[in-house]
Amino acid sequence: MCELFALNANVPAAATFSFAGLSARGGLTGDHVDGWGLAFHDGAGCRVFVDDAPASRSPLAAFLAQHPIKAPTIVGHVRKATQGGVALANCHPFHREWGGRHWVFVHNGDLKQFHPRLDGSFLPTGQTDSERAFCWLLQQLRRRFGRQPLPAWSVLAPIVRPWLQELAGFGVFNAILSDGRALLVHASTRLAWLERRHPFRQVRLIDRELELDLAQANGPSDRMVLVATAPLTHAEPWQPFEPGETRLFVNGESRWHARGAQGAQGARSAAAENEIFVGAA
Amino acid sequence: MCELFALNANVPAAATFSFAGLSARGGLTGDHVDGWGLAFHDGAGCRVFVDDAPASRSPLAAFLAQHPIKAPTIVGHVRKATQGGVALANCHPFHREWGGRHWVFVHNGDLKQFHPRLDGSFLPTGQTDSERAFCWLLQQLRRRFGRQPLPAWSVLAPIVRPWLQELAGFGVFNAILSDGRALLVHASTRLAWLERRHPFRQVRLIDRELELDLAQANGPSDRMVLVATAPLTHAEPWQPFEPGETRLFVNGESRWHARGAQGAQGARSAAAENEIFVGAA
Repeated sequence: MCELFALNANVPAAATFSFAGLSARGGLTGDHVDGWGLAFHDGAGCRVFVDDAPASRSPLAAFLAQHPIKAPTIVGHVRKATQGGVALANCHPFHREWGGRHWVFVHNGDLKQFHPRLDGSFLPTGQTDSERAFCWLLQQLRRRFGRQPLPAWSVLAPIVRPWLQELAGFGVFNAILSDGRALLVHASTRLAWLERRHPFRQVRLIDRELELDLAQANGPSDRMVLVATAPLTHAEPWQPFEPGETRLFVNGESRWHARGAQGAQGARSAAAENEIFVGAA
Repeated sequence: MCELFALNANVPAAATFSFAGLSARGGLTGDHVDGWGLAFHDGAGCRVFVDDAPASRSPLAAFLAQHPIKAPTIVGHVRKATQGGVALANCHPFHREWGGRHWVFVHNGDLKQFHPRLDGSFLPTGQTDSERAFCWLLQQLRRRFGRQPLPAWSVLAPIVRPWLQELAGFGVFNAILSDGRALLVHASTRLAWLERRHPFRQVRLIDRELELDLAQANGPSDRMVLVATAPLTHAEPWQPFEPGETRLFVNGESRWHARGAQGAQGARSAAAENEIFVGAA
């Protein structure tokens, strides 16, 4: 299984500290040695770094640790191959343009027998179930919205959720989707999230002997959310996702979530039992 | 104007030496200070690095110089903004997936009043004429081939050439397009190319005090083509493109070229005067 990571903040933030913990799982404290990747949205642009070397021994990962890139949205992944060999084309985040925006996607899990009909709008370049799922999601969006301007995430999230549930019906599907304006996160088994805001304090990594004083790095109005497969720090209020939970993060806070029936059957028959909007996404 | 660069080889090759010359033009010997980018195809995958800092002062460019990435196809760009501000979204190479392959594109020039009808298949994320041209080219390919398997470049090149000429009718259009299997290169004003093969010898950069013994880095069966806005080395047989020339490079050699009438009128009325295929692309 793979390790997922994401950050969403109301101002550009660095994920160097968190990625130090995450990348340790790519060969040091974990066996996720089949590649890694990080995507940084910056305005309308996006930097995507992928590497098929273990994150803990990757010179590029070390470079990014030494030269932090600040961004309001960062999505990362360290890979333990399940479907698809060790190759650059199979490394997450996957990346496509749709609607004039850069979309990125990371997945942890294993979708059995997921071979959707793809119409050619978006096709996989590698062999993973994850890239197929991403292509199918974007194809669904394209079919639903065509040439209309991209809707707000407050509109998108409830539309995308049943598709995420449908994917979860094929196996384990913990995933993060972003176009840089927001993070849409779905957990079928295991994900956790954490909100950080003023007052900031000293935090300590679980996977490495590293501490950081968040008060030094953040101002009183800064606000951010971290998402990870498992908590990255000691003594912070990481909240586990419920199985089947979908959550939308915008501007460093949770803006919407839905919980309920999981899997393809559930997705087709039942609306989310519990949908809550906070503010406008 | 911008500086273009590309490499195509029959085995994975590094472009570190050439990029040292090219990146000098990003702030040292040239005024191309508005960003840079490099794309490395690796099997079905592709690494794309873009940066809106000047190439000559970019830590990421320095890192890539110290940690060479070998690839059979490398496409690079250093930017002097004409249309679109200094921003990540406006940095070349532009990158899209089509037909399950990673397509990259770099452009030097300025297209006046080029605002094509885009159907939403591929949309710009930034403000450049270059990204609009790339999206339009991919849209043309998509309309022509739909869901058919991607044809060989020997088929593609003569089909794409009139579109390149049509683009050149809007202004200056020196450009390189690649899906990793080949380079398709069009010059409307200024580009040069160089073939290197056995016996390899010592070469010296024009823009920096740097020499390289190619015989140390290459075996007797290695073969490569370099493309650049202006020759990068002293005393090698760089060949200038003719205005209006399109050339296809595969496996480190020139496989096809066409010359002739340039511009939108020419593109619509006249077939290429001179088309030569060498081997199969």
